Amino acid sequence: MTSKSFGSDNHAGAHPAVLAAIMAANAGDAIAYGDDPLTGAVHSNLCTAAGAWQAYLVFNGTAANILGLSLMLRPFEAVICAETSHVNVDECGAAERLLGCKLLAVPTPDGKLTPDLIASRLTGLGDEHRAQPRVIQIAQVTELGTCYSLRELRDLHDFGREHDLLVYLDGARVANAAASLSCSLAVIAACADVLSFGGTKNGALGVEAVLVMSEGLVDGVQYQRKQLMQLASKMRFLAAQVDALLTGDLWLATARHANAMASRLAAALDGVPGVRLAYPVQSNGVFTELARDHAARLEQNWSCQIWSESADGRRCVVRWMTAFDTSEADVDRLAAAISSAPGVLDDTDAAVSRETQSA
Amino acid sequence: MTSKSFGSDNHAGAHPAVLAAIMAANAGDAIAYGDDPLTGAVHSNLCTAAGAWQAYLVFNGTAANILGLSLMLRPFEAVICAETSHVNVDECGAAERLLGCKLLAVPTPDGKLTPDLIASRLTGLGDEHRAQPRVIQIAQVTELGTCYSLRELRDLHDFGREHDLLVYLDGARVANAAASLSCSLAVIAACADVLSFGGTKNGALGVEAVLVMSEGLVDGVQYQRKQLMQLASKMRFLAAQVDALLTGDLWLATARHANAMASRLAAALDGVPGVRLAYPVQSNGVFTELARDHAARLEQNWSCQIWSESADGRRCVVRWMTAFDTSEADVDRLAAAISSAPGVLDDTDAAVSRETQSA
Amino acid sequence: MTSKSFGSDNHAGAHPAVLAAIMAANAGDAIAYGDDPLTGAVHSNLCTAAGAWQAYLVFNGTAANILGLSLMLRPFEAVICAETSHVNVDECGAAERLLGCKLLAVPTPDGKLTPDLIASRLTGLGDEHRAQPRVIQIAQVTELGTCYSLRELRDLHDFGREHDLLVYLDGARVANAAASLSCSLAVIAACADVLSFGGTKNGALGVEAVLVMSEGLVDGVQYQRKQLMQLASKMRFLAAQVDALLTGDLWLATARHANAMASRLAAALDGVPGVRLAYPVQSNGVFTELARDHAARLEQNWSCQIWSESADGRRCVVRWMTAFDTSEADVDRLAAAISSAPGVLDDTDAAVSRETQSA
Amino acid sequence: MTSKSFGSDNHAGAHPAVLAAIMAANAGDAIAYGDDPLTGAVHSNLCTAAGAWQAYLVFNGTAANILGLSLMLRPFEAVICAETSHVNVDECGAAERLLGCKLLAVPTPDGKLTPDLIASRLTGLGDEHRAQPRVIQIAQVTELGTCYSLRELRDLHDFGREHDLLVYLDGARVANAAASLSCSLAVIAACADVLSFGGTKNGALGVEAVLVMSEGLVDGVQYQRKQLMQLASKMRFLAAQVDALLTGDLWLATARHANAMASRLAAALDGVPGVRLAYPVQSNGVFTELARDHAARLEQNWSCQIWSESADGRRCVVRWMTAFDTSEADVDRLAAAISSAPGVLDDTDAAVSRETQSA
Repeated sequence: MTSKSFGSDNHAGAHPAVLAAIMAANAGDAIAYGDDPLTGAVHSNLCTAAGAWQAYLVFNGTAANILGLSLMLRPFEAVICAETSHVNVDECGAAERLLGCKLLAVPTPDGKLTPDLIASRLTGLGDEHRAQPRVIQIAQVTELGTCYSLRELRDLHDFGREHDLLVYLDGARVANAAASLSCSLAVIAACADVLSFGGTKNGALGVEAVLVMSEGLVDGVQYQRKQLMQLASKMRFLAAQVDALLTGDLWLATARHANAMASRLAAALDGVPGVRLAYPVQSNGVFTELARDHAARLEQNWSCQIWSESADGRRCVVRWMTAFDTSEADVDRLAAAISSAPGVLDDTDAAVSRETQSA
Repeated sequence: MTSKSFGSDNHAGAHPAVLAAIMAANAGDAIAYGDDPLTGAVHSNLCTAAGAWQAYLVFNGTAANILGLSLMLRPFEAVICAETSHVNVDECGAAERLLGCKLLAVPTPDGKLTPDLIASRLTGLGDEHRAQPRVIQIAQVTELGTCYSLRELRDLHDFGREHDLLVYLDGARVANAAASLSCSLAVIAACADVLSFGGTKNGALGVEAVLVMSEGLVDGVQYQRKQLMQLASKMRFLAAQVDALLTGDLWLATARHANAMASRLAAALDGVPGVRLAYPVQSNGVFTELARDHAARLEQNWSCQIWSESADGRRCVVRWMTAFDTSEADVDRLAAAISSAPGVLDDTDAAVSRETQSA
Repeated sequence: MTSKSFGSDNHAGAHPAVLAAIMAANAGDAIAYGDDPLTGAVHSNLCTAAGAWQAYLVFNGTAANILGLSLMLRPFEAVICAETSHVNVDECGAAERLLGCKLLAVPTPDGKLTPDLIASRLTGLGDEHRAQPRVIQIAQVTELGTCYSLRELRDLHDFGREHDLLVYLDGARVANAAASLSCSLAVIAACADVLSFGGTKNGALGVEAVLVMSEGLVDGVQYQRKQLMQLASKMRFLAAQVDALLTGDLWLATARHANAMASRLAAALDGVPGVRLAYPVQSNGVFTELARDHAARLEQNWSCQIWSESADGRRCVVRWMTAFDTSEADVDRLAAAISSAPGVLDDTDAAVSRETQSA
Repeated sequence: MTSKSFGSDNHAGAHPAVLAAIMAANAGDAIAYGDDPLTGAVHSNLCTAAGAWQAYLVFNGTAANILGLSLMLRPFEAVICAETSHVNVDECGAAERLLGCKLLAVPTPDGKLTPDLIASRLTGLGDEHRAQPRVIQIAQVTELGTCYSLRELRDLHDFGREHDLLVYLDGARVANAAASLSCSLAVIAACADVLSFGGTKNGALGVEAVLVMSEGLVDGVQYQRKQLMQLASKMRFLAAQVDALLTGDLWLATARHANAMASRLAAALDGVPGVRLAYPVQSNGVFTELARDHAARLEQNWSCQIWSESADGRRCVVRWMTAFDTSEADVDRLAAAISSAPGVLDDTDAAVSRETQSA
């Protein structure tokens, strides 16, 4: 690509510190499958950072979600999730196939579940004909770039406890949430029963962690991980990546930077005719609503994602993602490009139903 | 129960002719698992009646749906269905667990899919992150008692062919549809690729058939049936039931009668203050919208089903089902009871989102 | 068939008392899905007879096995079973597909597991790379017609408790075991954690029960049953069959008779040249080893099953099953036929590896 | 570890060339999920090297096996494999859970299947009660270090074609086989329908490829890969590893070296009292049978694996694995250690049933 990609935060490569840690981990032999000292230390550090009981490294975000949910569900139990959630839309039905569970997907205005939205799906409890809701699945930040406030997270967790529902938090971008909320990982994690901690979108080569918050949920997890094909033999190389991210809170610094670049972009677009934000910018994603032909012109020079289109095809929402290595100059060039080639936007709202390819 | 149940068409017993056929089938030994002459004859007769390539008997409606869908789906493929469909709501997630597939459930006004509604789910085709739509799943008649016209069925089938989608028709009450449309089973079946033919709700003790319309879809079906626990050893007793229903078109006569009783009830309720029909009465189900306290009084003496409630709890939809053995007197007594204890109904529409137990 | 079938105990029809009970159950309406009084009574009577905590009726034996095992297993757990077990050989891989579990099949001389045989499979405990043994699966009587003594059953159960293994007992023919051991159902059931109680092979039209022996294993069973497509809507007709079998201990009388007919056949064949028993006759199955051409002649007039063949094709084991309606005259005619058309049998042992179609 | 590990070939780190390729791949942005130029080139080069139709990169060996098998199986179909195969023993039941299929495991003397052994499992074809054999699963080299000759591979493939069976080849160590047979990858691959090409045990950080040999088997593979959680977002980093291995046939050089080190070890142990080879040394694994107390002494200073023990606990088989970075001096030190602390070995054969933890 000639110009910096805003198409996805996984278009970026790996952070130099991550690669350096991989190099350093390559000294001599190490016991496989996680019984090496580095993996042990990283597990311990992750648990400390998150206030978690146990941590398990896996290869990617879909796997983290599936392994995490596998600890909370029997096959007749259901997951309440936002209709736009990654587990519902972008994992090719992995939850249904691998866990056998039903997803109860709820339309939301901004990718965020609320107690009321969840309550709308709590029907048929105790009815043997119905899959039984057991897990509230949320993403923090959401797939629409929005960020739950801590109050919102706590309300969901409390609601879950009142209704015998566990909370799974998809933390593929939880670093961006911690940066956005200026809080620790532990504060967010405390609102979940199981969560993932994403590395890949935040400077890693490819690694995610499943964090289990209480002892009661870890029974059998090591078998689930192996059976779900997520047990790395040379585990030290996954651990090294997380080690680099945790060292000096690099994970937070990279996420802060990406968030700042998104805010910079949003600020630069404020007032540009025909362009408006589809959702509040609360992390490293900027969703702009603009004319379809405007987007088409931008696509010629910029990597981005047409997130959704209006039914009449005239308007669309474009997703622009920033990463740890997006520069202010990258943002400014993009903002200039968007501003200099404006389209015409109707006053009517753009459809936000997602109709295009995934991130 | 003291008065005739209107709670479900499976509250009724078995038709005397069905029991007589079972008795008659009990003469001497018979090869197990369907290799007996009676089963062979019934298979043949079913195929003739439906214009089908092959027929397979199973134990119940959920099993018919799952076996039927198993012939059309790979695990990464998805089923587009009405949100109110039995396979989505009332089978405890069997499709997700047993087939591993995703259900793409679409809200509908009346339980019926349309090409436009289906088209709204045809996003992400060819995108490896998305489960790929493969089957249009409809119920004829629907779970809301509505009946697709033949034109509507053909349009769905044509739409499916244009978009490389197969049609599965849940025919748990297809007899009621044939009675309602005054058409043969074959005319309806021709609009599907695989369908079920329901016996249980129409006078059988307990039997359904999966009808496969073309040779291309039967590969492996005998193994699927066995593996899905649907291969009856004393198959002759399932076959005998279907034999009784097919003989002299009993299946059509029983369905016609049930439909007529529903129409009689609807007619009797026409103009009753505070009571109105939630959906057109096009088969053997009458869905009445009335005040919640009115329904509560009726529930004391009548078996029925609270189908849904309004958000404020003041109104509800009550489902009344008729069966092959519902008499005119039963209907008239019920109509009188409803009319004599009226409630107060707001002019606003009742919520039709289904929030209660299943049928 | 012209002569009585010895091909399978499910070639027999239904016992007249079973059909009478079905007729009697057909009076008026009944709540569906098991909430009717007859089903309640039968559940209660079954639990009393077996000393069980709960009972669940299902359609067939494969379903009983799968539902029973579903209560005991997580997907990474394994079942230790005899290589000849029905769940391993004759259920088309239902356990693997529907439960996702591994079967650890052990060769046995006579279809019976022993603590030593089980111990040979208890490797890799605690190793995340290995499916973890959790259930000992046995059939009583076995698929080879042999019957565990009560001492053997208790030893298995004790062994299971010592090694944190649950016992599942496939009781498709547990009536024949109770008859053979002259003991109650409860005495056998006490050696299992979950078992099935077979009706179909013992005079029913088609019904089996899953009996759960302790409260700790019933959590979620009603959802599992529905999701596994085993919830009958007109449940009263399954219940009626079990009711007939329990009334006056008909189930025991029919099994006793069938066992007696098998013993009569075995006695009649004693000393017939070229014919010998492959396994002890301890229930309603007689497995005779004889020359393949002898068997071929018998097959022309008698329904039986070629159970296995020797590698050289010259010898085979033929399975002869008796049923509740097999008469002494039937047995005597068969014995005469076998004796009058003898073949030549080598002194070498017949191969007992099962290579033919199932029962 | 103080001395070089012989415990597993995945105790070794990554080859410097692999790390260098990862570094080089980290320049700028790249489209995710494999649409980058490097991944395209590597796919192409892999297909050329193997004569394959398509190549798909995944995270580890278990995943390669499951994805590969997913292309060949419907849920009622079965896999014939050696009892010692990784897919049967060391993948925690992943095949059963994720594919729903039955594994028909065959005891073998040396980890290798033969047409006769396979034929012993071809019973019940066409019988709806039986899972239907569809795939012959072999490992080349095997889990016991043995290597099929090309003649043996071709015979298996021919046998498969004659019996409508596909061949899946687990190539976690196929590089060692190519080195052992002095042949190209394509010559081996031509004997399979789908195979894996292992990188992880041969110098990679962690990557395997699934190679599909013909167009007829690739339908849907991209969805299967995503659904099975094997679609890496930053795919370039998987591709870079394979690129390094393919460049200048590094994969073959590393495997040749590892094999040579195993041969050196075997030669050095020839004639050592009380030590003998359990299997022929044909790749990078040396399985030595020796006294259990001898092994215990060696375990104090050397990382190795107790592969199996005799029933009486007095003898055992120890697996010693060499890797791309095992030196002659490492081997010589180990050989000296084994020779200088000999045990006593009975003349009776050691049990080769595997009873211990996995590799």
